[in-house]
Amino acid sequence: MTAVRRVDPDRKDRIVDAALDVIAEHGVAGATHRTIAAAADVPLGSMTYHFENLDEVLRLAFERHAAQSAARFEAAMAAVPEGHDPVEAIVALVCDEAGSYQRDLLVALELYVLAARKPSFRAVTQQWMAASRAALGRHVDADVAPDLDALVEGLVLHAVLSTGPDGGPPGVPLDPDRVRRAVRRQLG
Amino acid sequence: MTAVRRVDPDRKDRIVDAALDVIAEHGVAGATHRTIAAAADVPLGSMTYHFENLDEVLRLAFERHAAQSAARFEAAMAAVPEGHDPVEAIVALVCDEAGSYQRDLLVALELYVLAARKPSFRAVTQQWMAASRAALGRHVDADVAPDLDALVEGLVLHAVLSTGPDGGPPGVPLDPDRVRRAVRRQLG
Repeated sequence: MTAVRRVDPDRKDRIVDAALDVIAEHGVAGATHRTIAAAADVPLGSMTYHFENLDEVLRLAFERHAAQSAARFEAAMAAVPEGHDPVEAIVALVCDEAGSYQRDLLVALELYVLAARKPSFRAVTQQWMAASRAALGRHVDADVAPDLDALVEGLVLHAVLSTGPDGGPPGVPLDPDRVRRAVRRQLG
Repeated sequence: MTAVRRVDPDRKDRIVDAALDVIAEHGVAGATHRTIAAAADVPLGSMTYHFENLDEVLRLAFERHAAQSAARFEAAMAAVPEGHDPVEAIVALVCDEAGSYQRDLLVALELYVLAARKPSFRAVTQQWMAASRAALGRHVDADVAPDLDALVEGLVLHAVLSTGPDGGPPGVPLDPDRVRRAVRRQLG
């Protein structure tokens, strides 16, 4: 067992993934050395061996989450040929985000609360916003990209916070026609 | 002391206010019967006397927060005479929100995470969004109001999540000129 565990070059990586799982399920409040070690199936000592403190684990986890989300966004924008209208790709992405990525949205919101409370985590959110704006900037003016990014953020967030017509969960979180109109208006 | 405490008609009210303070300072994760009772300076038994469970305390607290924020928004929109351009009032409100209401933003984000996790709290967010849209709807088309509301949400949120040019806290969270351009674009 000990021998097997010693030969475990991906352990740090796995702990960071496990931290994201714990954050998604229990929030930052439930993410401790102990719960993360248990989720990663590593001894508690691994946490202090690999990380300076809990904030470092959280930072690496959120950086990974932001990088993955940004990569998805960038890939969708890169798939639109230069000079082509990016609106349909943006609409698809926004409706997809709001509908399919419940876990990712929870992790993002956990990051937002943390960054609002602890300025040191704003390096993560700032970098994420810069990546989104750069992806949008492939197709739209640099001064419009941050506002379009803010609009997209607000649309997805409000979809998550909505109830359906009967007060239950929303049946169709975001109507593509509505998103299309809003995005086109923001593009001027 | 007992006699004084018995004559305490505002106790329930005060507990709800204290719950908001605890949420702002420690998050929903730190809001328990015990911490809220301590903040309200009431005996622990008051919590179970006045509230069915912790979720009811949280719901009442967030409803109060949403009602206060919505009233501020509604007052600002109502101050613009009918038929007049509402953009400057919206810009002032957005820049003010992002700059002056750190506590309110924290409480709002705590509510968002909770509502994303527990659909029962989406009644609170849905009602809040409806109030904002109605306030905007005094001056803009009904089909534009939700998108303008989403844009405003995204702008304020991204301001909170930004660092300044040096990586520190943002010096000017939101540039009124930028907000004005984005709002005007969204109005079409």
